[in-house]
Amino acid sequence: LGMAVSPSTRRLLPLFLGLFQGALLLFFALFVTYDKPSAQAEDVNLVANQLYGIFPLFQDIQVMLVVGLGLLLTFLPQYGFSALTHNFLLLNFSTQWALVLQGLLHHFHHGQVHLDLHNLLTAEFAAVTVLISVGAVLGRTSPCQLLVVAACEVPIYLASEWAITTQLGVLDVGGTITIHVFSCYFGLGMSKALFGAVQQPVHPKETPTPRSDLLSLVGTLILWVFWPSFVAVLCQPGDAQHRAILNTLLAMSASAVTTVVASSLLESDGKLSPGHLQNGSLAGGVAIGAVADMALPPVAALALGSLSAVACVLGFRFLTPLLARKLALWDQCGIHNLHGLPGILGAAASAVAILVAPEDTSGSHFSQVSPTGGNASEALWGEWGDHGAGRQALCQAAGLAVAIGASLLTGLLTGAALRLPCLARPPERLCFDDSLYFKIQDQAENSRTGDTVEEGALALRERV
Amino acid sequence: LGMAVSPSTRRLLPLFLGLFQGALLLFFALFVTYDKPSAQAEDVNLVANQLYGIFPLFQDIQVMLVVGLGLLLTFLPQYGFSALTHNFLLLNFSTQWALVLQGLLHHFHHGQVHLDLHNLLTAEFAAVTVLISVGAVLGRTSPCQLLVVAACEVPIYLASEWAITTQLGVLDVGGTITIHVFSCYFGLGMSKALFGAVQQPVHPKETPTPRSDLLSLVGTLILWVFWPSFVAVLCQPGDAQHRAILNTLLAMSASAVTTVVASSLLESDGKLSPGHLQNGSLAGGVAIGAVADMALPPVAALALGSLSAVACVLGFRFLTPLLARKLALWDQCGIHNLHGLPGILGAAASAVAILVAPEDTSGSHFSQVSPTGGNASEALWGEWGDHGAGRQALCQAAGLAVAIGASLLTGLLTGAALRLPCLARPPERLCFDDSLYFKIQDQAENSRTGDTVEEGALALRERV
Amino acid sequence: LGMAVSPSTRRLLPLFLGLFQGALLLFFALFVTYDKPSAQAEDVNLVANQLYGIFPLFQDIQVMLVVGLGLLLTFLPQYGFSALTHNFLLLNFSTQWALVLQGLLHHFHHGQVHLDLHNLLTAEFAAVTVLISVGAVLGRTSPCQLLVVAACEVPIYLASEWAITTQLGVLDVGGTITIHVFSCYFGLGMSKALFGAVQQPVHPKETPTPRSDLLSLVGTLILWVFWPSFVAVLCQPGDAQHRAILNTLLAMSASAVTTVVASSLLESDGKLSPGHLQNGSLAGGVAIGAVADMALPPVAALALGSLSAVACVLGFRFLTPLLARKLALWDQCGIHNLHGLPGILGAAASAVAILVAPEDTSGSHFSQVSPTGGNASEALWGEWGDHGAGRQALCQAAGLAVAIGASLLTGLLTGAALRLPCLARPPERLCFDDSLYFKIQDQAENSRTGDTVEEGALALRERV
Repeated sequence: LGMAVSPSTRRLLPLFLGLFQGALLLFFALFVTYDKPSAQAEDVNLVANQLYGIFPLFQDIQVMLVVGLGLLLTFLPQYGFSALTHNFLLLNFSTQWALVLQGLLHHFHHGQVHLDLHNLLTAEFAAVTVLISVGAVLGRTSPCQLLVVAACEVPIYLASEWAITTQLGVLDVGGTITIHVFSCYFGLGMSKALFGAVQQPVHPKETPTPRSDLLSLVGTLILWVFWPSFVAVLCQPGDAQHRAILNTLLAMSASAVTTVVASSLLESDGKLSPGHLQNGSLAGGVAIGAVADMALPPVAALALGSLSAVACVLGFRFLTPLLARKLALWDQCGIHNLHGLPGILGAAASAVAILVAPEDTSGSHFSQVSPTGGNASEALWGEWGDHGAGRQALCQAAGLAVAIGASLLTGLLTGAALRLPCLARPPERLCFDDSLYFKIQDQAENSRTGDTVEEGALALRERV
Repeated sequence: LGMAVSPSTRRLLPLFLGLFQGALLLFFALFVTYDKPSAQAEDVNLVANQLYGIFPLFQDIQVMLVVGLGLLLTFLPQYGFSALTHNFLLLNFSTQWALVLQGLLHHFHHGQVHLDLHNLLTAEFAAVTVLISVGAVLGRTSPCQLLVVAACEVPIYLASEWAITTQLGVLDVGGTITIHVFSCYFGLGMSKALFGAVQQPVHPKETPTPRSDLLSLVGTLILWVFWPSFVAVLCQPGDAQHRAILNTLLAMSASAVTTVVASSLLESDGKLSPGHLQNGSLAGGVAIGAVADMALPPVAALALGSLSAVACVLGFRFLTPLLARKLALWDQCGIHNLHGLPGILGAAASAVAILVAPEDTSGSHFSQVSPTGGNASEALWGEWGDHGAGRQALCQAAGLAVAIGASLLTGLLTGAALRLPCLARPPERLCFDDSLYFKIQDQAENSRTGDTVEEGALALRERV
Repeated sequence: LGMAVSPSTRRLLPLFLGLFQGALLLFFALFVTYDKPSAQAEDVNLVANQLYGIFPLFQDIQVMLVVGLGLLLTFLPQYGFSALTHNFLLLNFSTQWALVLQGLLHHFHHGQVHLDLHNLLTAEFAAVTVLISVGAVLGRTSPCQLLVVAACEVPIYLASEWAITTQLGVLDVGGTITIHVFSCYFGLGMSKALFGAVQQPVHPKETPTPRSDLLSLVGTLILWVFWPSFVAVLCQPGDAQHRAILNTLLAMSASAVTTVVASSLLESDGKLSPGHLQNGSLAGGVAIGAVADMALPPVAALALGSLSAVACVLGFRFLTPLLARKLALWDQCGIHNLHGLPGILGAAASAVAILVAPEDTSGSHFSQVSPTGGNASEALWGEWGDHGAGRQALCQAAGLAVAIGASLLTGLLTGAALRLPCLARPPERLCFDDSLYFKIQDQAENSRTGDTVEEGALALRERV
């Protein structure tokens, strides 16, 4: 089976990864160090308290990305091991790559890069964009292609995030615009350029089974539970963080209920679609990111959660088939429905929230730290104080436009690069199959232990 | 398959849920707000520290309810997706409903309801009662019926909890009486009224498979790990909370070991029953709730954990079949064994503990916050100081009686309401099957990808 | 099926466990108490803050051991329920047993043992050694044998840990030497003595299926995510703990990427082996334990993570088959590759780190608490200040030698004890099968619901 991919192209993956690990070691050896330890006892307490504040949230986010997102992607019944492993590999590779780039870009003072948990966290946020984007091409790409995506997308994300957050001063504590919208359109652009104008046929291994749908739903639930940590981890400690947690909880709760309403209304027989549940329940978390720490009334979070769930379900039901038919745009995981539409809704909500927010919220409530840890946005707050909410609302819209434009363009270029033959895109008949990349019991063996009745029955007929 | 349930009754679920979401939005828009932000820097630190104290425990409880309890319910092999989804939907619906009712009942001062993480937590505790109760009728009820259960049980729980904790001054920091005993007998009453005097036949889809048992055990283990957070989250910070955590850990550890002893002694061939393990391991956590923060010696926690595991296993082996035979009482998940018997044990233990506790423990050690956040119980402490431990022990017994009586009665009424034809109770032959409510590959399709040999073989015979 | 094990031997397990629970209750009743509650309000805050510092990490470790390690062991397709349950039972039994022994050994002052979360944690660390060791004989041992292993290994571990940490003053905050190396060679010695010189044949039920491999990988990912908590939980709060977390994160990230490189380079067709991924990704966490809190440059953590992953993968590819062939040494889970080789690497790294560390790191940076909570090692630091780094490096080497020697010897003795006929080692043909110990649908029933095509097809042929 695997012979269709020649051994020489199979060597590319370890070669590429091995060289990268070597370069990483060199970079760390030359430039990276930890912060100097605290000399004073009270500093030690401060460090300990800061650690206790951020570390549980950091672990929550790790669980989300490694276990939750990994399981969510296992809905393809014979591609679960690949989905889980590629997600894990990409997370690690992209985080390391973002650490190197961040070190070069932001922290290069006095020849030394100081590493702390906060840096690791913002590097992981860069990796999240990769994990989201590759959802559009899940199952039809080789690991080499995925690594190329990561290599391209991380620097583009860092540049885009810098432009949006630091230069434009966009408020987006939960990454709605900088992470979700950006990665969605990057992924769609990439998919378009990679698969071209040919509509992808439905693959026999593409249909979820009850078992793969169940495991995928468990992934959704893990993401759902820990999403407040993702949104709130970079908020100002205290009221803003408390509010961000509450807003996210309300938005996700509204999403979960509204998804059931929307999904059962849309289907003629009133049955719920597993795909709607797996994605719609999370839509509120995507949308709330841009406004989570703002001093909004709680009803706004509920409304935004409900709206984004409706948008997500409508997207799955109507927009994805339409895009596939009209634009031959392939979106395997429906990232446009989970990250694109709710992200745009969230960005619009942030502009509206800023316009209608009472005067006294423009101060401390809106101050925030950008995902890359820059505090240049704080400088902009004085500016907002001067120029008013209208300008800030415009900034939000401009940020959204930059995120969509930049990601679509660079996504298309990245997708074109993925067509290089040396990257060993799997042929259609070998897609969605773990046995192409893993020494895993293949179909013939499975039939013996009971996985496919057809083959078992076939074998029996031959014997009979 | 699903045609047996008419499309018009299928419309009831989104209609009901949609109207509820609309009403929720309206209620929040009119009445609910966040706390005013702290003006002082030291207040900010206080808020941040309080958040760091409660938020990790809150997340633990979310994992328990959404992932742990959800997986525990997947032991029905073809009903896993429904069990997980209905649990998730009920949790969200009931929490929102409890927030509304709590807002109306407790917090309606000055026209505004102030929402914080503590309110959300107590609303979630109300939802827990629903999640437990519906375990008695798992697989034989429609989502509409489940929502009616939630709509009825949440206000009854809030009233019962108010009567038990605030009026009677019952000590029950972990919800042994107010949550577990209450929800158990509510569920049993409901089951009795719903299914009437007809004994339910054993359904062919009711038997767990090794795979569904494994996933269900994973759910148990998740619940087991995070149970201390559930018991301790509302304790007084400091020693009482530390003690509650330790007592719960000891009780659950004793439960786990004792379950193995009891289960293998009861079976003639010495094999362990998966159901005993899945439930007995958690019995100690149910029982310890009422005494977790009291100044007991550690051996009491161990003994209570062991005893409740024995009660749970004996219940599964003898009581559940007896109740089914004599009273035609259907208890699909065995909630009487996990929540009823250990809950009664825990209530009795709390009375005994109060009677035998040394004098000096009556003060700070027993002070606690009620699950709904009222601190009226604190006022009662002076009273206890006056009237002595005997009266408090009587209160515990009275609280248990109120919980059982009120829940049985209201459960029976709720179960009668569930017989309304418009609630679309599934016919027996369609029970325990995901494909009734979800667009999931049904049995015919499954056979093609290998789920049922019988059908595959049958198809083959026809071809042969 | 189960009749091959006589009912009388089946009675041994509940008898043994029941007696132990009784003795535990007695011991706790006589000797164990909680700390006296704090009298001062500021002490209450201190207790609360300490609790908030340690409890989330404690919960992380519980998830690792109960869920993560449990799932990792489910790679045997028909032994998943047993693996999960035995792991859970052993954890509880060993922790309780370690609590008793620790109480007798360390805390027996004034007739009372004071129990707190820290004691429970160090008792759990003792249990970890048992969970690792039994991996060598997974699937071929009875629960009685496993309990005997726990009964023997826990006191030996406590003695060994005392000798290594307290007497030799070895630095090993993450348990690389005291836990991983010790338990690995204990397990290997035990396996050798139990199975003797006969090479174990490959069992038909030993081969993982795609589904069991997937669940096992989920276990790996859970372990991977929470490993930093395991390494850092006993570090000094503040900088040392922050550094331990960062070092562990870096080492594990490097392990994950390097495992992919090494595994795909080693296989002729470039496919990845699931076993390599499931274990190699964790190798960095094993190795980093001994140096995690030292003031090393970050590159050292990355390099150690990469090296240990390479060692682990090479071990699986070459060393395990070699040991099986030459020494008839059976290592079912490959504990030598995950715990032995990376542990030795980590111990060597700690010696090197001490030798090359700058002078000013010998003070506060190295101070640590031993896993059993003794602070005798702190006294040794003055000594190190006097005698220099060379002596400390020698101590690390001596600690490694003691760990390997003591564990091999006692492991062999324990393995010999496991050959007692009354312990009911399962006969070869009944190995790797849940139905020997659990009332779980056995193979014949499974075939009816679709688990084994062979039997289904066989049944069909008979009917035809």
